[in-house]
Amino acid sequence: MNPYSSSLNHPILKKSFEIIDQEMGDHNLNSLEYAIARRVIHATADFEFANLLRFSPDAIKNGMDGLGSQIPIVTDVTMVKQGITTLVNKTFNNPLISAIEQVSDALPGKTRTETGILKCFEQYPEAIYVIGNAPTALLALCQKIADLTIKPSLIIGVPVGFVSVVESKKILAKTNVSQIRVEGRKGGSPVASAIINALLILAYEK
Amino acid sequence: MNPYSSSLNHPILKKSFEIIDQEMGDHNLNSLEYAIARRVIHATADFEFANLLRFSPDAIKNGMDGLGSQIPIVTDVTMVKQGITTLVNKTFNNPLISAIEQVSDALPGKTRTETGILKCFEQYPEAIYVIGNAPTALLALCQKIADLTIKPSLIIGVPVGFVSVVESKKILAKTNVSQIRVEGRKGGSPVASAIINALLILAYEK
Repeated sequence: MNPYSSSLNHPILKKSFEIIDQEMGDHNLNSLEYAIARRVIHATADFEFANLLRFSPDAIKNGMDGLGSQIPIVTDVTMVKQGITTLVNKTFNNPLISAIEQVSDALPGKTRTETGILKCFEQYPEAIYVIGNAPTALLALCQKIADLTIKPSLIIGVPVGFVSVVESKKILAKTNVSQIRVEGRKGGSPVASAIINALLILAYEK
Repeated sequence: MNPYSSSLNHPILKKSFEIIDQEMGDHNLNSLEYAIARRVIHATADFEFANLLRFSPDAIKNGMDGLGSQIPIVTDVTMVKQGITTLVNKTFNNPLISAIEQVSDALPGKTRTETGILKCFEQYPEAIYVIGNAPTALLALCQKIADLTIKPSLIIGVPVGFVSVVESKKILAKTNVSQIRVEGRKGGSPVASAIINALLILAYEK
């Protein structure tokens, strides 16, 4: 399907993508990776993300297959859930769970997001996990899955900030879980949402 | 009140602010402006915002006074509302309205967010308006208020992207409305939320 013929692509999005294509410098991304990077750049107006995104070899295929199979999507925080709700509802209607909403209190010594992610993993171990905010949630998830055979279909690891963020991404990188990461301190809810939204379009229009 | 003695400031936030203080280069921000810039940098891990933020002379005072007086806060999109709900509820409990949620359809030739903002302005002309996403909403608001005496208490104009974004901010800059802007293409929901959250803390702890 022509990606611009779809009601999923607003004219403003199309025009934005044209500008990004014109201004984009050299990169080493393949066409599917570029489709994701372009949507992240659209959401942030920050071309640096083209050089910060990392994809494990099977990540995009696993993400597209998982979304198309209507597996659940677990987000760390509600802003990420909010950012993908519209497109999920227009495409595969995956169950959409915000981890922080699943618990009213944090377990001792843990953050509330971390507590929520661990609870979600008990229920949906093979979901797609989207961490746009909380490095504690990403760390907890990586530790939990280390010795397990059942793993998430995909982890999108793009927390943002100055404390534990870089460390959490390094630990994710060392796992053998299918993953899309942003190296360094940058990331955030719009980046996380953009990655899922790009995967939804790729899966829906393939 | 010591800003770190409050339950509003998580230890991770405190540590992040220390790192930002250490790494921050030269800037021309006064102490209140810096408090806002620091929270934006915390939310984005992008120090460039220190040089992109613009404050009209009365913006921070008007924002603090308005928040403390429990005036409504109108956001363009729900992600921005989501990003400030927790802190609003812990401080002044301002009415919190997402413009896009106020309308089920767009008026002809307008976006849905634009339609929602215009509807909100009819009801709450003196609210604080927080535009983190939709330049169309910012443009519509600027045009609407041009000839009116009653104006918003503060406009936070930080849409992000490649189409109409820079233009909408230039038009905001030419109005005499109290405003906080990010120059250029950058901005977004976390930036918008961070500015309101910083203002809430400043107003609550003054």
